[in-house]
Amino acid sequence: MGEFDLIARLAPLLDGAGDGVVVGYGDDAAVLVAGERGVVVTVDALVEGVHFRRDLSTFADIGWKAVAVNVSDVAAMGARPASAVVALCRPKALDQVDVEALYRGMRAACDRWGLRLVGGDTVASDQLVISVTVLGEADPAAVVRRSGARPGDRIVVVGALGAAAAALAQVGAGRAPDPRLLAAHRRPLALVDAGAVLAAHGATAMIDVSDGLGADLGHVCAASGVGAHVRWSDLPVADGAADAACAAGADPVDVVAGGGEDYALVAALPAAIAQRAAAAAGATEGVPAAVVGEIVEGTRIVLMLGGGGERDLARMGFDHYDA
Amino acid sequence: MGEFDLIARLAPLLDGAGDGVVVGYGDDAAVLVAGERGVVVTVDALVEGVHFRRDLSTFADIGWKAVAVNVSDVAAMGARPASAVVALCRPKALDQVDVEALYRGMRAACDRWGLRLVGGDTVASDQLVISVTVLGEADPAAVVRRSGARPGDRIVVVGALGAAAAALAQVGAGRAPDPRLLAAHRRPLALVDAGAVLAAHGATAMIDVSDGLGADLGHVCAASGVGAHVRWSDLPVADGAADAACAAGADPVDVVAGGGEDYALVAALPAAIAQRAAAAAGATEGVPAAVVGEIVEGTRIVLMLGGGGERDLARMGFDHYDA
Repeated sequence: MGEFDLIARLAPLLDGAGDGVVVGYGDDAAVLVAGERGVVVTVDALVEGVHFRRDLSTFADIGWKAVAVNVSDVAAMGARPASAVVALCRPKALDQVDVEALYRGMRAACDRWGLRLVGGDTVASDQLVISVTVLGEADPAAVVRRSGARPGDRIVVVGALGAAAAALAQVGAGRAPDPRLLAAHRRPLALVDAGAVLAAHGATAMIDVSDGLGADLGHVCAASGVGAHVRWSDLPVADGAADAACAAGADPVDVVAGGGEDYALVAALPAAIAQRAAAAAGATEGVPAAVVGEIVEGTRIVLMLGGGGERDLARMGFDHYDA
Repeated sequence: MGEFDLIARLAPLLDGAGDGVVVGYGDDAAVLVAGERGVVVTVDALVEGVHFRRDLSTFADIGWKAVAVNVSDVAAMGARPASAVVALCRPKALDQVDVEALYRGMRAACDRWGLRLVGGDTVASDQLVISVTVLGEADPAAVVRRSGARPGDRIVVVGALGAAAAALAQVGAGRAPDPRLLAAHRRPLALVDAGAVLAAHGATAMIDVSDGLGADLGHVCAASGVGAHVRWSDLPVADGAADAACAAGADPVDVVAGGGEDYALVAALPAAIAQRAAAAAGATEGVPAAVVGEIVEGTRIVLMLGGGGERDLARMGFDHYDA
């Protein structure tokens, strides 16, 4: 059973929107009411051997990533991160200097996006796990959920796709990974300013690409009750990712549209504003951005290739349990 | 190196009070400003083999405990819990029915203390780890830190000590644990109402007993720059805990004053109000409560036994790494 199926099974045990809750389970982050303000909260755990390997990342890289992936979730709500707490599960064999390096990486990421690192918990474990919770601030009326995409909306991608997955494809093929590609795996960038720009331009739905464009756009479509058409030729692909995928014997379409960890933002916006929003969001971060398709009626999520070919984009995501 | 030493080494990488932060690292929970309100946040991870064992706890027990220990941290600030998110690190071999039981336990604890369970993250792992973050609400001016205890303050304990440690001593001695004692390990109760009563009575410092009375009172004393005298004869001991400890070959003083997981509250209060505060806090929860000693100048934390004997209470705590 896949991760997403399990989450669906647990849904009756979780809280949705209601008393004091603006956005409950099932989005990039929850949004709670605190007086007039909204508090955005999200938690992601990184597990050694699943989300990082010590031969590919330094401990500072791992700490950075543990913060960045959560900041990205806050960004995908159109909100701003403010604080972080960490639960570190530490194998006894992990040197103190490594723990300090891990914290230095978290500190660097917190400084990068203006977060306070205000506490946490350190416990003994066999496996290294870093669980970071990030809190953010938002106007409750302005947060961008996954559920608001409507047929006719355009799909915007901000940030390059495929770098992290291409690097891991190289590693999997026994090749030395391209450092520029591997950097996306080691030190992902959360697009907080781009998220704010897309929200301000009226994004109707938004998500960050952690599991892969197909899987994550699939979450938006499922929550919104819509389908999507995406044009392969318009996707912003990381420089060198397609070449690296080919050289590693992988299908570049799988790597770019199915690979995770890009932390690009995918948003739906009204057609009239989409091009301008994409340009503004890309410019504020200095990353590629494009209108890549549109939201349609139905449930199919189609990647349209050149020459009339099609791929089922929803089946191209990365699922920890099925992979 | 012990857990507490490590935390001290990491302090320069963490944020204390400052812009937008009322209470930073080093307390039971952090307190952030959200408009006029305070948001309390805390995270605790439970690791299989360290904090629970499948032969002693059901999965529902484990889920309950993962929430309760965090609620207890919020209670120890004199605050009220409002919401929880969870990062579940799930071994592939863990059945879906077990994951659901774990979530049912979390749900039951959330219902017990009025929390919304608004989301989280499920990831693959080798070791079962449940990292819960609880958010609460507080008046920023009214939260009770660890650092406010002053010489002359009385020390109040609300809740019985020693039950969980006595049950684990029985298990360690190869005996069947007393179900009443083991219940404290399996389904700890967080004393939210008692924490609010103690705060309203003017508690100058407060903490919950997770690592043991000695260790946790030690945190209060270290943060406040004071020492403490505690009278063994006045400690509220769980019914049967001393007998069980003796029968298991353990020192009842070690078990009661050094054992963790009691989730009692320990607070310092002005002398004139301490007795009334203890009685009110105990009554609101239906648990034993007592004035057990006083805050003194210096740094020594002494447990005063009958007949003029003394023990160094600060060295009696439970430390995951030294144990």
